[in-house]
Amino acid sequence: MKGKVKIYNATRIEKDKRKELSEKVAEEAVLRIFLNEQEIVVLSCTPYDQTYLAVGFLISDGFLKSKEEIRNINTSEDRVTVYTDSSYKIPETSQLQGILTSGCGKGKSFANWEEIDPLEDVLIDLDFSLSPDQILEVMSQFEKRSELFRETAGVHSAALAKKDGIILFNEDIGRHNAVDKVLGESLLKGIKLKDKFLVISGRVSSDIVSKLKHSGLSTVVSRTAPTGLAVRMAQKLGITLVGFVRGSRMTVYSFPVRIQ
Amino acid sequence: MKGKVKIYNATRIEKDKRKELSEKVAEEAVLRIFLNEQEIVVLSCTPYDQTYLAVGFLISDGFLKSKEEIRNINTSEDRVTVYTDSSYKIPETSQLQGILTSGCGKGKSFANWEEIDPLEDVLIDLDFSLSPDQILEVMSQFEKRSELFRETAGVHSAALAKKDGIILFNEDIGRHNAVDKVLGESLLKGIKLKDKFLVISGRVSSDIVSKLKHSGLSTVVSRTAPTGLAVRMAQKLGITLVGFVRGSRMTVYSFPVRIQ
Repeated sequence: MKGKVKIYNATRIEKDKRKELSEKVAEEAVLRIFLNEQEIVVLSCTPYDQTYLAVGFLISDGFLKSKEEIRNINTSEDRVTVYTDSSYKIPETSQLQGILTSGCGKGKSFANWEEIDPLEDVLIDLDFSLSPDQILEVMSQFEKRSELFRETAGVHSAALAKKDGIILFNEDIGRHNAVDKVLGESLLKGIKLKDKFLVISGRVSSDIVSKLKHSGLSTVVSRTAPTGLAVRMAQKLGITLVGFVRGSRMTVYSFPVRIQ
Repeated sequence: MKGKVKIYNATRIEKDKRKELSEKVAEEAVLRIFLNEQEIVVLSCTPYDQTYLAVGFLISDGFLKSKEEIRNINTSEDRVTVYTDSSYKIPETSQLQGILTSGCGKGKSFANWEEIDPLEDVLIDLDFSLSPDQILEVMSQFEKRSELFRETAGVHSAALAKKDGIILFNEDIGRHNAVDKVLGESLLKGIKLKDKFLVISGRVSSDIVSKLKHSGLSTVVSRTAPTGLAVRMAQKLGITLVGFVRGSRMTVYSFPVRIQ
Protein backbone atom coordinates (compact mmCIF):
# COMPACT_ATOMS: atom_id res chain seq x y z
CA MET A 1 0.00 0.00 0.00
CA LYS A 2 2.45 2.61 -1.18
CA GLY A 3 1.68 6.13 -2.30
CA LYS A 4 -0.19 9.04 -0.79
CA VAL A 5 -3.41 8.82 -2.77
CA LYS A 6 -5.40 6.03 -4.42
CA ILE A 7 -8.52 5.89 -6.53
CA TYR A 8 -11.67 4.27 -5.12
CA ASN A 9 -15.05 3.67 -6.74
CA ALA A 10 -17.79 5.70 -5.09
CA THR A 11 -21.39 6.81 -5.59
CA ARG A 12 -22.07 10.54 -5.69
CA ILE A 13 -25.64 11.36 -4.64
CA GLU A 14 -27.08 14.80 -5.30
CA LYS A 15 -30.81 15.22 -4.78
CA ASP A 16 -32.39 12.45 -6.86
CA LYS A 17 -29.33 11.80 -9.02
CA ARG A 18 -26.83 8.99 -8.43
CA LYS A 19 -23.56 8.81 -10.31
CA GLU A 20 -20.78 6.20 -10.15
CA LEU A 21 -17.38 7.83 -10.10
CA SER A 22 -13.71 7.37 -9.19
CA GLU A 23 -12.64 9.34 -6.13
CA LYS A 24 -9.14 10.20 -4.92
CA VAL A 25 -8.72 9.11 -1.31
CA ALA A 26 -5.78 9.68 1.05
CA GLU A 27 -4.10 6.32 1.64
CA GLU A 28 -3.68 4.94 5.17
CA ALA A 29 -1.41 2.08 6.19
CA VAL A 30 0.08 0.57 9.30
CA LEU A 31 3.74 1.13 10.20
CA ARG A 32 5.63 -0.73 12.92
CA ILE A 33 8.58 1.16 14.43
CA PHE A 34 11.39 -0.82 16.04
CA LEU A 35 14.36 0.49 18.02
CA ASN A 36 16.95 -2.29 17.78
CA GLU A 37 15.09 -5.44 18.87
CA GLN A 38 12.29 -3.56 20.64
CA GLU A 39 8.96 -2.79 18.96
CA ILE A 40 8.11 0.74 20.09
CA VAL A 41 4.79 1.54 18.45
CA VAL A 42 2.34 0.66 15.68
CA LEU A 43 1.17 3.77 13.84
CA SER A 44 -1.52 4.36 11.27
CA CYS A 45 -0.02 6.74 8.71
CA THR A 46 0.26 7.98 5.14
CA PRO A 47 2.61 5.38 3.58
CA TYR A 48 5.27 7.80 2.36
CA ASP A 49 8.55 8.96 3.93
CA GLN A 50 8.24 6.23 6.59
CA THR A 51 11.93 6.52 7.51
CA TYR A 52 11.48 10.19 8.41
CA LEU A 53 8.34 9.32 10.36
CA ALA A 54 10.07 6.62 12.39
CA VAL A 55 13.12 8.72 13.21
CA GLY A 56 10.94 11.73 14.02
CA PHE A 57 8.73 9.65 16.29
CA LEU A 58 11.79 8.36 18.16
CA ILE A 59 13.14 11.90 18.59
CA SER A 60 9.92 13.55 19.62
CA ASP A 61 9.03 10.82 22.09
CA GLY A 62 12.45 11.08 23.72
CA PHE A 63 14.06 7.85 22.45
CA LEU A 64 16.71 9.54 20.30
CA LYS A 65 18.65 12.72 20.94
CA SER A 66 21.04 13.04 17.98
CA LYS A 67 21.92 11.65 14.58
CA GLU A 68 25.14 10.25 16.03
CA GLU A 69 23.21 7.69 18.05
CA ILE A 70 21.93 6.07 14.82
CA ARG A 71 24.09 3.30 13.35
CA ASN A 72 21.76 2.04 10.62
CA ILE A 73 18.13 2.21 9.45
CA ASN A 74 16.24 -0.61 7.77
CA THR A 75 13.00 0.39 6.02
CA SER A 76 10.47 -1.95 4.43
CA GLU A 77 6.88 -1.32 3.39
CA ASP A 78 5.30 -1.73 6.82
CA ARG A 79 8.28 -1.60 9.18
CA VAL A 80 11.19 0.69 10.04
CA THR A 81 13.96 -0.48 12.36
CA VAL A 82 16.44 2.05 13.71
CA TYR A 83 19.67 0.49 14.97
CA THR A 84 21.68 2.47 17.47
CA ASP A 85 25.28 2.46 18.56
CA SER A 86 26.13 -0.11 21.20
CA SER A 87 26.65 2.64 23.78
CA TYR A 88 23.02 3.76 23.39
CA LYS A 89 20.72 3.60 26.40
CA ILE A 90 17.00 4.38 26.34
CA PRO A 91 16.75 7.84 27.96
CA GLU A 92 14.77 8.27 31.15
CA THR A 93 12.61 10.89 29.42
CA SER A 94 11.30 8.47 26.79
CA GLN A 95 7.75 7.16 26.70
CA LEU A 96 9.02 3.61 27.00
CA GLN A 97 10.73 4.33 30.31
CA GLY A 98 7.37 5.57 31.55
CA ILE A 99 5.71 2.40 30.28
CA LEU A 100 8.35 0.07 31.69
CA THR A 101 8.46 1.70 35.10
CA SER A 102 4.71 1.84 35.62
CA GLY A 103 3.56 -1.38 33.97
CA CYS A 104 2.45 -2.52 30.54
CA GLY A 105 0.16 -0.19 28.66
CA LYS A 106 0.56 2.60 31.19
CA GLY A 107 1.81 6.09 31.08
CA LYS A 108 2.02 8.76 28.47
CA SER A 109 4.69 11.27 29.33
CA PHE A 110 2.28 14.22 29.15
CA ALA A 111 0.34 12.77 32.09
CA ASN A 112 2.65 14.63 34.45
CA TRP A 113 2.88 17.99 32.71
CA GLU A 114 0.72 19.75 35.26
CA GLU A 115 3.35 19.09 37.94
CA ILE A 116 6.37 20.40 36.03
CA ASP A 117 8.58 22.94 37.74
CA PRO A 118 8.53 25.75 35.17
CA LEU A 119 11.93 27.27 35.93
CA GLU A 120 13.66 23.93 35.80
CA ASP A 121 12.36 23.14 32.34
CA VAL A 122 12.62 26.46 30.51
CA LEU A 123 15.80 25.69 28.65
CA ILE A 124 14.75 27.11 25.35
CA ASP A 125 16.56 29.96 23.64
CA LEU A 126 14.86 33.34 24.03
CA ASP A 127 17.07 34.96 21.38
CA PHE A 128 14.96 33.66 18.50
CA SER A 129 12.34 36.07 17.23
CA LEU A 130 9.99 36.50 14.27
CA SER A 131 8.02 39.42 12.87
CA PRO A 132 4.27 39.06 12.26
CA ASP A 133 4.93 39.66 8.54
CA GLN A 134 7.41 36.76 8.43
CA ILE A 135 4.79 34.48 9.99
CA LEU A 136 2.10 35.58 7.52
CA GLU A 137 4.42 35.06 4.55
CA VAL A 138 5.46 31.57 5.71
CA MET A 139 1.82 30.61 6.37
CA SER A 140 0.93 31.76 2.85
CA GLN A 141 3.70 29.51 1.40
CA PHE A 142 2.53 26.69 3.66
CA GLU A 143 -1.03 26.78 2.41
CA LYS A 144 0.12 26.73 -1.21
CA ARG A 145 2.15 23.59 -0.51
CA SER A 146 -0.73 21.60 0.97
CA GLU A 147 -1.44 19.73 -2.26
CA LEU A 148 -2.51 16.39 -0.84
CA PHE A 149 -5.03 18.17 1.34
CA ARG A 150 -6.44 19.98 -1.66
CA GLU A 151 -6.77 16.66 -3.49
CA THR A 152 -8.35 14.60 -0.75
CA ALA A 153 -9.27 16.89 2.17
CA GLY A 154 -7.98 14.08 4.32
CA VAL A 155 -4.53 14.98 5.67
CA HIS A 156 -2.60 17.32 7.94
CA SER A 157 0.51 19.26 6.97
CA ALA A 158 3.61 20.34 8.89
CA ALA A 159 6.65 22.37 7.92
CA LEU A 160 9.99 23.44 9.31
CA ALA A 161 10.58 27.09 8.44
CA LYS A 162 13.21 29.75 8.88
CA LYS A 163 12.38 33.44 8.97
CA ASP A 164 12.19 33.85 5.23
CA GLY A 165 10.53 30.63 4.16
CA ILE A 166 9.80 26.92 4.38
CA ILE A 167 12.71 24.45 4.43
CA LEU A 168 10.94 21.11 4.89
CA PHE A 169 7.31 20.21 4.29
CA ASN A 170 5.36 16.99 4.78
CA GLU A 171 1.83 15.63 5.03
CA ASP A 172 0.15 12.73 6.77
CA ILE A 173 -3.30 11.53 7.73
CA GLY A 174 -2.03 11.81 11.34
CA ARG A 175 -1.54 15.28 12.81
CA HIS A 176 1.42 14.04 14.88
CA ASN A 177 2.91 12.04 12.04
CA ALA A 178 3.22 15.11 9.81
CA VAL A 179 5.25 16.79 12.57
CA ASP A 180 7.38 13.68 13.15
CA LYS A 181 8.18 13.38 9.44
CA VAL A 182 9.51 16.93 9.43
CA LEU A 183 11.51 16.40 12.64
CA GLY A 184 12.93 13.10 11.36
CA GLU A 185 14.00 14.60 8.05
CA SER A 186 15.65 17.55 9.79
CA LEU A 187 17.63 15.21 12.06
CA LEU A 188 18.77 12.97 9.21
CA LYS A 189 19.79 15.98 7.10
CA GLY A 190 21.60 17.60 10.02
CA ILE A 191 19.48 20.75 10.00
CA LYS A 192 19.91 22.82 13.17
CA LEU A 193 16.61 23.80 14.76
CA LYS A 194 17.60 26.74 16.99
CA ASP A 195 16.74 29.42 14.41
CA LYS A 196 13.76 27.58 12.90
CA PHE A 197 10.09 27.24 13.80
CA LEU A 198 7.33 24.71 13.23
CA VAL A 199 4.20 25.36 11.13
CA ILE A 200 1.20 23.03 11.37
CA SER A 201 -2.22 22.89 9.76
CA GLY A 202 -4.01 21.24 12.66
CA ARG A 203 -4.76 21.99 16.27
CA VAL A 204 -1.95 22.51 18.78
CA SER A 205 -2.56 19.96 21.51
CA SER A 206 -0.33 19.05 24.44
CA ASP A 207 1.46 16.28 22.56
CA ILE A 208 2.52 18.68 19.80
CA VAL A 209 4.05 21.01 22.42
CA SER A 210 5.74 17.98 23.98
CA LYS A 211 7.32 17.14 20.61
CA LEU A 212 8.71 20.69 20.38
CA LYS A 213 10.33 20.38 23.79
CA HIS A 214 12.13 17.18 22.87
CA SER A 215 13.31 18.56 19.54
CA GLY A 216 14.59 21.91 20.86
CA LEU A 217 12.27 24.09 18.77
CA SER A 218 10.95 27.19 20.54
CA THR A 219 8.04 28.36 18.37
CA VAL A 220 4.98 26.72 16.80
CA VAL A 221 2.55 28.44 14.46
CA SER A 222 -0.85 27.08 13.41
CA ARG A 223 -3.73 28.30 11.33
CA THR A 224 -6.13 26.89 13.89
CA ALA A 225 -6.69 26.58 17.66
CA PRO A 226 -4.64 25.35 20.63
CA THR A 227 -6.00 23.38 23.58
CA GLY A 228 -5.85 24.68 27.15
CA LEU A 229 -3.30 22.10 28.25
CA ALA A 230 -1.10 22.98 25.27
CA VAL A 231 -1.21 26.66 26.28
CA ARG A 232 -0.29 25.86 29.90
CA MET A 233 2.56 23.59 28.79
CA ALA A 234 3.89 26.21 26.38
CA GLN A 235 3.76 28.84 29.14
CA LYS A 236 5.71 26.56 31.49
CA LEU A 237 8.24 25.39 28.93
CA GLY A 238 9.07 28.74 27.40
CA ILE A 239 7.54 27.91 24.02
CA THR A 240 5.86 30.54 21.83
CA LEU A 241 2.48 29.26 20.67
CA VAL A 242 0.80 31.20 17.85
CA GLY A 243 -2.68 30.19 16.72
CA PHE A 244 -5.31 31.34 14.21
CA VAL A 245 -2.84 32.74 11.67
CA ARG A 246 -5.45 33.87 9.16
CA GLY A 247 -5.63 36.82 6.79
CA SER A 248 -3.48 39.54 8.40
CA ARG A 249 -3.83 38.48 12.01
CA MET A 250 -2.79 35.90 14.58
CA THR A 251 -3.20 35.15 18.30
CA VAL A 252 -0.17 34.56 20.53
CA TYR A 253 -0.95 32.38 23.56
CA SER A 254 2.48 32.23 25.22
CA PHE A 255 5.83 34.04 25.16
CA PRO A 256 4.77 36.84 22.78
CA VAL A 257 8.26 38.27 23.38
CA ARG A 258 9.48 36.24 20.38
CA ILE A 259 6.99 37.91 18.01
CA GLN A 260 8.39 41.40 17.38
CA MET B 1 -9.40 20.98 35.22
CA LYS B 2 -13.12 20.59 34.70
CA GLY B 3 -15.24 22.17 32.00
CA LYS B 4 -15.09 22.27 28.27
CA VAL B 5 -13.71 25.78 27.79
CA LYS B 6 -11.46 28.09 29.79
CA ILE B 7 -10.30 31.66 29.37
CA TYR B 8 -6.62 32.33 28.66
CA ASN B 9 -4.75 35.62 28.28
CA ALA B 10 -3.44 36.09 24.75
CA THR B 11 -1.99 38.74 22.46
CA ARG B 12 -3.83 39.45 19.24
CA ILE B 13 -1.51 40.83 16.56
CA GLU B 14 -2.94 42.46 13.44
CA LYS B 15 -0.51 44.30 11.21
CA ASP B 16 1.27 46.74 13.58
CA LYS B 17 -1.33 46.57 16.34
CA ARG B 18 -1.01 44.41 19.45
CA LYS B 19 -3.90 43.91 21.83
CA GLU B 20 -4.07 41.94 25.07
CA LEU B 21 -7.28 39.96 25.28
CA SER B 22 -8.98 36.98 26.91
CA GLU B 23 -9.50 34.04 24.59
CA LYS B 24 -11.77 31.03 25.00
CA VAL B 25 -9.75 27.84 24.59
CA ALA B 26 -10.96 24.23 24.49
CA GLU B 27 -9.77 22.52 27.68
CA GLU B 28 -7.63 19.38 27.52
CA ALA B 29 -6.92 17.00 30.38
CA VAL B 30 -5.58 13.54 30.98
CA LEU B 31 -7.93 10.65 31.81
CA ARG B 32 -6.83 7.21 33.01
CA ILE B 33 -9.23 4.37 32.24
CA PHE B 34 -9.17 1.26 34.41
CA LEU B 35 -11.02 -2.02 33.92
CA ASN B 36 -11.16 -3.58 37.39
CA GLU B 37 -7.52 -3.52 38.59
CA GLN B 38 -6.02 -3.14 35.12
CA GLU B 39 -5.05 0.27 33.70
CA ILE B 40 -6.13 0.11 30.04
CA VAL B 41 -5.17 3.49 28.60
CA VAL B 42 -4.26 7.10 29.31
CA LEU B 43 -6.18 9.49 27.08
CA SER B 44 -5.94 13.20 26.45
CA CYS B 45 -9.52 14.50 26.28
CA THR B 46 -12.06 17.24 26.88
CA PRO B 47 -12.73 16.86 30.64
CA TYR B 48 -16.48 16.39 30.41
CA ASP B 49 -18.64 13.25 30.33
CA GLN B 50 -15.60 11.14 31.28
CA THR B 51 -17.79 8.21 32.33
CA TYR B 52 -19.31 8.00 28.85
CA LEU B 53 -15.84 8.29 27.32
CA ALA B 54 -14.43 5.46 29.42
CA VAL B 55 -17.35 3.11 28.80
CA GLY B 56 -17.37 3.98 25.09
CA PHE B 57 -13.64 3.36 24.82
CA LEU B 58 -14.03 -0.05 26.45
CA ILE B 59 -16.88 -0.98 24.07
CA SER B 60 -15.27 0.25 20.91
CA ASP B 61 -11.93 -1.35 21.67
CA GLY B 62 -13.60 -4.68 22.33
CA PHE B 63 -13.29 -4.88 26.14
CA LEU B 64 -17.02 -4.65 26.87
CA LYS B 65 -19.95 -6.09 24.95
CA SER B 66 -23.03 -5.17 26.97
CA LYS B 67 -24.29 -3.09 29.87
CA GLU B 68 -24.93 -6.28 31.84
CA GLU B 69 -21.19 -6.89 32.18
CA ILE B 70 -20.81 -3.66 34.20
CA ARG B 71 -21.21 -3.98 37.97
CA ASN B 72 -20.15 -0.49 39.05
CA ILE B 73 -18.39 2.64 37.74
CA ASN B 74 -16.19 4.93 39.81
CA THR B 75 -15.43 8.34 38.25
CA SER B 76 -13.07 10.96 39.65
CA GLU B 77 -11.56 13.98 37.97
CA ASP B 78 -8.75 12.19 36.16
CA ARG B 79 -9.72 8.54 36.42
CA VAL B 80 -12.64 6.25 35.57
CA THR B 81 -12.72 2.66 36.81
CA VAL B 82 -15.26 0.25 35.36
CA TYR B 83 -15.88 -2.80 37.56
CA THR B 84 -17.29 -5.87 35.86
CA ASP B 85 -19.18 -8.89 37.03
CA SER B 86 -17.02 -11.68 38.38
CA SER B 87 -17.87 -13.86 35.37
CA TYR B 88 -16.31 -11.29 33.02
CA LYS B 89 -13.34 -12.32 30.89
CA ILE B 90 -11.38 -9.97 28.61
CA PRO B 91 -12.59 -10.88 25.09
CA GLU B 92 -10.11 -12.17 22.56
CA THR B 93 -11.03 -9.33 20.22
CA SER B 94 -9.91 -6.60 22.63
CA GLN B 95 -6.82 -4.46 22.08
CA LEU B 96 -5.37 -5.71 25.36
CA GLN B 97 -5.47 -9.32 24.22
CA GLY B 98 -3.46 -8.20 21.22
CA ILE B 99 -1.00 -6.45 23.49
CA LEU B 100 -0.66 -9.31 25.94
CA THR B 101 -0.21 -11.97 23.31
CA SER B 102 2.39 -10.12 21.28
CA GLY B 103 4.36 -8.33 24.01
CA CYS B 104 4.24 -5.01 25.81
CA GLY B 105 3.59 -1.98 23.67
CA LYS B 106 2.76 -4.05 20.64
CA GLY B 107 -0.24 -4.52 18.47
CA LYS B 108 -3.15 -2.37 17.51
CA SER B 109 -6.02 -4.52 16.36
CA PHE B 110 -6.33 -2.69 13.03
CA ALA B 111 -2.86 -3.96 12.10
CA ASN B 112 -4.46 -7.09 10.72
CA TRP B 113 -7.42 -5.61 8.86
CA GLU B 114 -5.92 -6.22 5.47
CA GLU B 115 -6.06 -9.97 6.07
CA ILE B 116 -9.69 -10.18 7.18
CA ASP B 117 -11.91 -12.69 5.47
CA PRO B 118 -14.76 -10.47 4.29
CA LEU B 119 -17.54 -13.04 4.28
CA GLU B 120 -16.76 -14.19 7.77
CA ASP B 121 -16.96 -10.71 9.22
CA VAL B 122 -19.96 -9.19 7.46
CA LEU B 123 -22.45 -9.67 10.25
CA ILE B 124 -24.08 -6.31 9.99
CA ASP B 125 -27.75 -5.88 9.24
CA LEU B 126 -28.52 -4.94 5.65
CA ASP B 127 -32.14 -4.05 6.43
CA PHE B 128 -31.26 -0.60 7.69
CA SER B 129 -31.57 2.16 5.10
CA LEU B 130 -31.61 5.96 4.92
CA SER B 131 -32.70 8.43 2.29
CA PRO B 132 -30.30 11.16 1.13
CA ASP B 133 -32.76 13.77 2.47
CA GLN B 134 -32.67 12.17 5.92
CA ILE B 135 -28.89 12.36 5.92
CA LEU B 136 -28.89 16.00 4.85
CA GLU B 137 -31.45 16.94 7.51
CA VAL B 138 -29.49 15.17 10.28
CA MET B 139 -26.22 16.79 9.13
CA SER B 140 -27.91 20.18 9.26
CA GLN B 141 -29.02 19.53 12.88
CA PHE B 142 -25.53 18.24 13.66
CA GLU B 143 -23.81 21.39 12.51
CA LYS B 144 -26.16 23.58 14.56
CA ARG B 145 -25.27 21.58 17.68
CA SER B 146 -21.52 22.03 17.34
CA GLU B 147 -21.37 24.88 19.82
CA LEU B 148 -18.01 24.20 21.40
CA PHE B 149 -16.45 24.10 17.96
CA ARG B 150 -17.95 27.45 17.12
CA GLU B 151 -16.55 28.90 20.33
CA THR B 152 -13.03 27.55 20.13
CA ALA B 153 -12.51 25.91 16.72
CA GLY B 154 -10.69 23.23 18.64
CA VAL B 155 -12.89 20.16 18.94
CA HIS B 156 -14.57 17.35 17.03
CA SER B 157 -18.23 16.36 17.29
CA ALA B 158 -20.05 13.04 17.05
CA ALA B 159 -23.71 12.09 17.21
CA LEU B 160 -25.94 9.07 17.30
CA ALA B 161 -28.92 9.62 15.02
CA LYS B 162 -32.06 7.85 13.92
CA LYS B 163 -33.71 8.52 10.58
CA ASP B 164 -35.52 11.65 11.69
CA GLY B 165 -32.97 13.28 13.94
CA ILE B 166 -30.13 13.32 16.47
CA ILE B 167 -30.52 11.36 19.71
CA LEU B 168 -27.13 11.84 21.38
CA PHE B 169 -24.46 14.44 20.69
CA ASN B 170 -21.03 15.01 22.16
CA GLU B 171 -17.77 16.87 21.55
CA ASP B 172 -14.13 16.31 22.40
CA ILE B 173 -10.69 17.55 21.39
CA GLY B 174 -10.07 13.94 20.27
CA ARG B 175 -11.84 12.69 17.15
CA HIS B 176 -12.11 9.18 18.61
CA ASN B 177 -13.15 10.41 22.04
CA ALA B 178 -16.21 12.20 20.64
CA VAL B 179 -17.34 8.88 19.09
CA ASP B 180 -16.58 6.94 22.29
CA LYS B 181 -18.60 9.40 24.41
CA VAL B 182 -21.63 8.82 22.19
CA LEU B 183 -21.18 5.03 22.21
CA GLY B 184 -20.68 4.99 25.99
CA GLU B 185 -23.79 7.07 26.63
CA SER B 186 -25.87 4.88 24.32
CA LEU B 187 -24.75 1.73 26.15
CA LEU B 188 -25.42 3.16 29.61
CA LYS B 189 -28.85 4.43 28.54
CA GLY B 190 -29.73 1.12 26.89
CA ILE B 191 -30.23 2.63 23.43
CA LYS B 192 -30.34 -0.03 20.71
CA LEU B 193 -28.05 0.73 17.77
CA LYS B 194 -29.49 -1.42 14.98
CA ASP B 195 -31.70 1.32 13.53
CA LYS B 196 -29.29 4.19 14.26
CA PHE B 197 -26.27 5.66 12.50
CA LEU B 198 -23.18 7.62 13.49
CA VAL B 199 -22.46 11.20 12.42
CA ILE B 200 -18.98 12.68 12.83
CA SER B 201 -17.37 16.02 12.05
CA GLY B 202 -13.89 14.69 11.36
CA ARG B 203 -12.22 12.31 8.96
CA VAL B 204 -13.25 8.67 8.80
CA SER B 205 -10.06 6.70 9.44
CA SER B 206 -9.67 2.96 9.98
CA ASP B 207 -10.01 3.21 13.75
CA ILE B 208 -13.42 4.91 13.43
CA VAL B 209 -14.64 2.05 11.20
CA SER B 210 -13.23 -0.40 13.75
CA LYS B 211 -15.28 1.28 16.50
CA LEU B 212 -18.44 0.85 14.40
CA LYS B 213 -17.80 -2.85 13.98
CA HIS B 214 -17.45 -3.42 17.71
CA SER B 215 -20.57 -1.40 18.51
CA GLY B 216 -22.83 -3.00 15.87
CA LEU B 217 -23.56 0.21 13.95
CA SER B 218 -23.78 -0.21 10.18
CA THR B 219 -23.53 3.35 8.82
CA VAL B 220 -21.24 6.34 9.38
CA VAL B 221 -21.74 9.77 7.89
CA SER B 222 -19.15 12.56 7.86
CA ARG B 223 -18.96 16.05 6.44
CA THR B 224 -15.34 15.35 5.43
CA ALA B 225 -13.09 12.67 3.88
CA PRO B 226 -12.37 8.99 4.59
CA THR B 227 -8.94 7.35 4.32
CA GLY B 228 -8.22 4.51 1.91
CA LEU B 229 -7.84 1.92 4.66
CA ALA B 230 -11.16 3.03 6.16
CA VAL B 231 -12.86 2.53 2.78
CA ARG B 232 -11.35 -0.95 2.36
CA MET B 233 -12.36 -1.93 5.90
CA ALA B 234 -15.90 -0.65 5.39
CA GLN B 235 -16.15 -2.61 2.14
CA LYS B 236 -15.00 -5.78 3.86
CA LEU B 237 -17.12 -5.35 6.98
CA GLY B 238 -20.38 -4.41 5.31
CA ILE B 239 -20.40 -0.86 6.65
CA THR B 240 -21.87 2.05 4.69
CA LEU B 241 -19.39 4.93 4.67
CA VAL B 242 -20.73 8.30 3.52
CA GLY B 243 -18.33 11.26 3.21
CA PHE B 244 -18.44 14.90 2.15
CA VAL B 245 -22.06 15.52 3.17
CA ARG B 246 -22.17 19.16 2.11
CA GLY B 247 -24.91 21.32 0.65
CA SER B 248 -27.24 18.94 -1.17
CA ARG B 249 -24.74 16.21 -1.97
CA MET B 250 -22.70 13.37 -0.50
CA THR B 251 -20.29 10.62 -1.60
CA VAL B 252 -20.91 6.98 -0.66
CA TYR B 253 -17.73 4.89 -0.53
CA SER B 254 -19.15 1.50 0.45
CA PHE B 255 -22.48 -0.34 0.55
CA PRO B 256 -24.56 2.36 -1.18
CA VAL B 257 -27.45 -0.13 -1.00
CA ARG B 258 -28.37 1.38 2.39
CA ILE B 259 -28.82 4.88 0.92
CA GLN B 260 -32.14 4.79 -0.96
